[in-house]
Amino acid sequence: MSVDPVVLTADLIRCPSVTPAEGGALVLLERLLSGAGFTCTRVDRGGVANLYARWGRQGANKAFGFNGHTDVVPVGDAGAWTQDPFGAAVVDGWMYGRGATDMKSGVAAFAAAAVDFVTDTPPDGAVILAITGDEEGVAVDGTVALLDWMAQNNEAMSVCLVGEPTCPEVLGDMMKIGRRGSMTAHFEARGVQGHSAYPHRAKNPVTAMVWLMDRLAAHELDRGTDHFDASTLAITTVDTGNAATNVIPAQCRGTVNIRFNDMHTGASLTAWLQAEAAKVQAETGVEITLTASVSGEAFLTPPGPLSTLIADAVQAETGLRPQPSTSGGTSDARFVKALCPVVEFGLVGKTMHQVDERVEVAQIVALKAIYGRLLRAYFA
Amino acid sequence: MSVDPVVLTADLIRCPSVTPAEGGALVLLERLLSGAGFTCTRVDRGGVANLYARWGRQGANKAFGFNGHTDVVPVGDAGAWTQDPFGAAVVDGWMYGRGATDMKSGVAAFAAAAVDFVTDTPPDGAVILAITGDEEGVAVDGTVALLDWMAQNNEAMSVCLVGEPTCPEVLGDMMKIGRRGSMTAHFEARGVQGHSAYPHRAKNPVTAMVWLMDRLAAHELDRGTDHFDASTLAITTVDTGNAATNVIPAQCRGTVNIRFNDMHTGASLTAWLQAEAAKVQAETGVEITLTASVSGEAFLTPPGPLSTLIADAVQAETGLRPQPSTSGGTSDARFVKALCPVVEFGLVGKTMHQVDERVEVAQIVALKAIYGRLLRAYFA
Repeated sequence: MSVDPVVLTADLIRCPSVTPAEGGALVLLERLLSGAGFTCTRVDRGGVANLYARWGRQGANKAFGFNGHTDVVPVGDAGAWTQDPFGAAVVDGWMYGRGATDMKSGVAAFAAAAVDFVTDTPPDGAVILAITGDEEGVAVDGTVALLDWMAQNNEAMSVCLVGEPTCPEVLGDMMKIGRRGSMTAHFEARGVQGHSAYPHRAKNPVTAMVWLMDRLAAHELDRGTDHFDASTLAITTVDTGNAATNVIPAQCRGTVNIRFNDMHTGASLTAWLQAEAAKVQAETGVEITLTASVSGEAFLTPPGPLSTLIADAVQAETGLRPQPSTSGGTSDARFVKALCPVVEFGLVGKTMHQVDERVEVAQIVALKAIYGRLLRAYFA
Repeated sequence: MSVDPVVLTADLIRCPSVTPAEGGALVLLERLLSGAGFTCTRVDRGGVANLYARWGRQGANKAFGFNGHTDVVPVGDAGAWTQDPFGAAVVDGWMYGRGATDMKSGVAAFAAAAVDFVTDTPPDGAVILAITGDEEGVAVDGTVALLDWMAQNNEAMSVCLVGEPTCPEVLGDMMKIGRRGSMTAHFEARGVQGHSAYPHRAKNPVTAMVWLMDRLAAHELDRGTDHFDASTLAITTVDTGNAATNVIPAQCRGTVNIRFNDMHTGASLTAWLQAEAAKVQAETGVEITLTASVSGEAFLTPPGPLSTLIADAVQAETGLRPQPSTSGGTSDARFVKALCPVVEFGLVGKTMHQVDERVEVAQIVALKAIYGRLLRAYFA
C-alpha cells in the first residue's frame, strides 16, 4: 500500500493550522505514522504542538531525519483568494491553499516517502520525522522544543533534511547547505537640544546618527566566501519626529539589519557596531547606545556526503543537479545544525505567504519520489 | 511735561495683545502720540492692527524712524508664572509681564523719548514711529503692511532704529547691524521597497538620505565674513517610520535649516542643495526632491553714520560701546532694510518668550535716555 502524497497534502491543507493552532494536522500525521510502525511522541511546549516520530530502534547507527512544519501563516486578505484557503481545490493541475508550498506538501512528501520506504524495504537503522507547529511564529517552542526533548531522551539523527521550498524556478535547481546569519541593531542617539540658529551650542543627535549610518552603510563587511554571498547591511529606518525647523532635537533613533556569512558572528558584528558608535560618540559628544539582537548565526554544512546524496537523488529524478546555496532568510535548519549535518531541499516556493498560495500537483509526486530515492540510497 | 516710560510700559503690558490681538496697545499709543502732535494712521491689514505716526512734515530731508511691535507671544504655562502675565507688577526693581522685554518696554522707551524730544526741542525734520501688531506671528501683514502703505503714500524714513532687545548681558553691550538669512529645506527620498536580506534588489531611500545629510552637515559653507559669523546648517529631522526590520522602506524624509551670511542668498543655497541631492540621486538611483523655503535673506547696514551715532549715544549713557553684531534670529529689520539704513538697539532680553518675562525698571529709564540722546544728536 502506497501513501498518496497529493491526498495527504490536501488533507493537511484542510487543517486550519495557522500558528500556533495545531488544527488537526499533527493528529492526522500521528495516526498515519503510528499505523506504519512509527513510535510517535507529541512534544508540546508553550502552547505549541510538535510531533516526534521514529521508525526503527533508538540509538541506531544510521538515523535519517526529516524536519518540517505544519503551521502556516495567516490567510491575509481572504476576499482576494480565488479559492478557499483551506479547501485544497485543484485547478488546472495546481492545488490551492495556505501552506500548499510552505510546507504541507513538503511534509506530505517526506511522510509518504518514509512510510512507503519502511514498509517496502525496512532499513537497518532509523527514520525520524521531527515536525513542528511553530516555524512561522517566534519558533521558541517548535523545533527547539523537539531538539531539547531529543537530548533529554537520547534521541539522535545522523543527518537531517529540512523539507522547506528551496527551488527558485524549477524543481531541482537548488538546495540550501547553510544560511546567512541575521541580526538587527537599534541605535539611539541622545544629544543636547538647541536652537537651529546656534548649532555649536547644541549637540545634534541627527548629525551624529546620519554620520554613523553613512559609515555603516559604506563599510564593506566582506566580499563573500566559498559558499556565501557577501554580507549585507541595510538601514531600515532613521527617525527623529521633530516638526520644529528652528529646533535641534535631543534624540534620534536608527536601525540596521545585517545578513552575514561565516566570516562573522553576531558577537563580532555587535563589537564592530559598538566601536563605530563609540567613534561617532567621541567625535560628536552625542551619546549613542546600541541594542543588538541576533536572530540567527550563519551556519554551513559544507558540501560532503549528505549534499552529494541529495544532489544525486534530485538529479536522478529531475535531470537537474541542484545548486548548493546559502541564500535566503532563516529556517529551522539553524537549530538542527547543532545536532547533525543538515541540508534543505524542497519544491518551488514562489507563492509562499501569498494570496492564492498553490502547488503544482506533479511536483508533490516528484518530491516524494526524490525523498524515497534518497532514503534508499542512504541506507543502501 | 515728560512721559514716564515705566508707566507707559506698565500700561502696555496690561493690554493683552497676544498676536494678532491689538489688545488696546496701539489705541493707547495713538492717543499719546496724537496728543503730542503726531499724525497717526492705523494701517490695518489682514486682521492685524498697525500704527504709523509721524511728527513733522511729509518729505522732510531728515526723518528718523523707530520700528517696533506691541504684539506678544502667548503666556505659555500660566500656572508657572509667579506674577500676572498682564499685571505689570514690580518686584525688587523688576517689572513682570509678557512683553516686558520683547518689546513693550522698547516701544514705551522710544515713544516717550520721541514725545519729549518733539515737545522740548522741535526738530527741523520728521520723527516717525512704525509700530506693528504682528512681529511674533507670520509677519506678512505687520511691518510689511506699514512699508507697503508708506510706499503708496510717499512716506519715507532716512534711517531707522528697531527697538528689539539686543544686549546679551548688560544694557549697552551690543547692537545689531544686520542679520543672517534663514532658510529651511525639506528633502524627500523615494526608492524601491524590498527585503532587508537583499539590499541590492531594493533602492534604499534611507541610505541615500543619510549620505546626503552627512554630506550637507560636513560641508563648510564659509568661514564668516567681516561682519558675519560663519554660516551654519543644522539637520533638524530625518524620518522614515518603518517598524519592520526585515523591510527596506520606500521613502524617507529629512530637513535642514540654514542660517547664512552675506556670502550666500536663498537662491544660491537652494541651487547648492539641489546639486547635492542630484549627486546622491545619480549615485544611488533614489529619487530625491527638494522643497526649499527662504524666510529671510542676509542683510547688513555696514558700520557707518547710523551705527556710530547709536554707539556714541549708548556710550554716553552707559559707558559701554556696543559691539556691532549680526547674530541672532530674524527681526523686522529684514523688511526695513529695503527702505533705509537700519540698526537694532534695545535692552537685555534674557527672559523674552519665557515664563516670568521681566524687565529691570532702571533699564527702561536708561533706554529712553539713550533714544532721546540719539534723536538730539541726529538732528543737531
